[in-house]
Amino acid sequence: MPELRKDPILGRWIIIAMERSKRPSDFVVDCHESQGGFCPLCPENERTTPPEVLVYGRGYGMPPNSPGWQLRVVPNKYPALVIEGELDKQGEGLYDRMNGIGAHEVVIESPDHAASFSFLPHDQMLLTFRAFKERIADLSKDERFTYVMVFKNNGKAAGASLEHSHSQLVALPVMPRMLVSELEGSRQYYSYKDRCVFCDIIRQEVQQKVRLVCENSRFVTLTPFAPRTPFEMWVLPKKHNSSYIEQDEASLSDLAHIFSETLRRLDTCIPGIPYNFILHTQPLRSRPLEHYHWHFEIVPKLTSIAGFEWGTGFYINPMPPEDACRYLRDMQL
Amino acid sequence: MPELRKDPILGRWIIIAMERSKRPSDFVVDCHESQGGFCPLCPENERTTPPEVLVYGRGYGMPPNSPGWQLRVVPNKYPALVIEGELDKQGEGLYDRMNGIGAHEVVIESPDHAASFSFLPHDQMLLTFRAFKERIADLSKDERFTYVMVFKNNGKAAGASLEHSHSQLVALPVMPRMLVSELEGSRQYYSYKDRCVFCDIIRQEVQQKVRLVCENSRFVTLTPFAPRTPFEMWVLPKKHNSSYIEQDEASLSDLAHIFSETLRRLDTCIPGIPYNFILHTQPLRSRPLEHYHWHFEIVPKLTSIAGFEWGTGFYINPMPPEDACRYLRDMQL
Repeated sequence: MPELRKDPILGRWIIIAMERSKRPSDFVVDCHESQGGFCPLCPENERTTPPEVLVYGRGYGMPPNSPGWQLRVVPNKYPALVIEGELDKQGEGLYDRMNGIGAHEVVIESPDHAASFSFLPHDQMLLTFRAFKERIADLSKDERFTYVMVFKNNGKAAGASLEHSHSQLVALPVMPRMLVSELEGSRQYYSYKDRCVFCDIIRQEVQQKVRLVCENSRFVTLTPFAPRTPFEMWVLPKKHNSSYIEQDEASLSDLAHIFSETLRRLDTCIPGIPYNFILHTQPLRSRPLEHYHWHFEIVPKLTSIAGFEWGTGFYINPMPPEDACRYLRDMQL
Repeated sequence: MPELRKDPILGRWIIIAMERSKRPSDFVVDCHESQGGFCPLCPENERTTPPEVLVYGRGYGMPPNSPGWQLRVVPNKYPALVIEGELDKQGEGLYDRMNGIGAHEVVIESPDHAASFSFLPHDQMLLTFRAFKERIADLSKDERFTYVMVFKNNGKAAGASLEHSHSQLVALPVMPRMLVSELEGSRQYYSYKDRCVFCDIIRQEVQQKVRLVCENSRFVTLTPFAPRTPFEMWVLPKKHNSSYIEQDEASLSDLAHIFSETLRRLDTCIPGIPYNFILHTQPLRSRPLEHYHWHFEIVPKLTSIAGFEWGTGFYINPMPPEDACRYLRDMQL
């Protein structure tokens, strides 16, 4: 059983994957490994994944876990957290731990092994964002969970262990530290100004236009004022809303449109760029929050020449976001 | 002039290196680059670095910036922050920025290009820790600075751009976010328990012995209870002290001894392992703090198989620290 452990100084929770414990010889120093030819996420290999929890596109009457799908969500075969069991919160001297209860799912975004997420057709991209909504809504029924992390690792340097385009959901019994800090920071701003800090950012960026990468009727993409890495981008809904799953179908469609344009600009600017994107949304079963605003953060993983973190939470970024924005905006799509 | 910018939600400061701004084509996706044959940190090449600000080991009467030294500290030739100028703090709408004033220095830990920091002789290792103390003390006289970050990037994967063993000091006009969080967290613990959380950790670890890698009369090395990565280690003084530069020569010598043993254990366990180490100490010119305890954190940088951060401050670590500790302790040195 994996374990959740809390750092007693910072309050940061980490997962210790007890059963997958490695030996020192398992850690390779080289960063290149070739991938085998077999892909468990491809059509015809449905039986090699755990049974699907959500599927789109397969015709009526077709058996589950068979080909013909457009998108599948399956439990991770090697989950970081396990779904069965009690949290069993315990102290150990001054330390706090609990069982690693959670859900860990994989969203297979396309049946096409070679498809790049950045260049998915609109309908296919839309399915991904719909799947996020549907799975978060479903996982929120489990009272043990307080948050669902939704993220994508695109490219080996960004942590992807499989080539086939996919993203992940992790339902957690504790809040990730970054979200706690964001909720606190935005609450402080709200208590001082009586306005949502994200709404203020959007207003200023749409007016100044120096960090505005693209927009449509419901969304903006911007390079943030204080980005950690070159080409970091945030995608935000223009209308205040703290919860991703409150979006209707028209909003999801606009989100797919702007995401598609955003990633095509990025991938045209630096072909094959590895990146992570992460959904930031309110805690599960929270009432709507006046001070918080859901959004996606897209963070490229470039080599050491680029954005560098010194291990003390201090980043150096060799590219002003105004320059990054200009490069992205000038791309011919 | 570089710029310091603050994230309006998290309060996180980042450095934008305006003048070193890159074009998209400067960002390479491949992580392997060969290094040229010329090393600016080697003896005989002293004139290719800015003039030294501290030197150990060169005989009396020898000219500065000439060979014969055991350790040199020089300003970084490509500094992230610049020493000349005013902070000129300004708002831009809801954002905060200031000029990127600071100091960025390189500690060349040995004249030997091929020397590995982990295997430096004791006297040479001691010079490094003495240089940290002397440079922090000197930089603290500049009232513009509030903190000096001291860190080492060992190996290309950990961000080292030069092979020749070196560490870095960055004097900052703002506090790094991680330090702010640590100071807050430890203050909360103190206000609740009236004890230093680090002192409590040391007490528990020395008694339990399951995460105690090594110790000597003044220091302990342990694998923390909630480590971000396999083989993460903390080196802490046994006696409560919040300030690195308050150490006397006997303590620096014991620190060099335990660091040497700690890194030799790590490097024997996984030869050539890339890592960062970072000094955590109190803010400059602070009075002694009852709730804070200076220490070093050593964080290996392993490939995606190992310790993985999901971009939301949530880490998964495939190796329990009790296992890592056992491997490290069992190494034959």
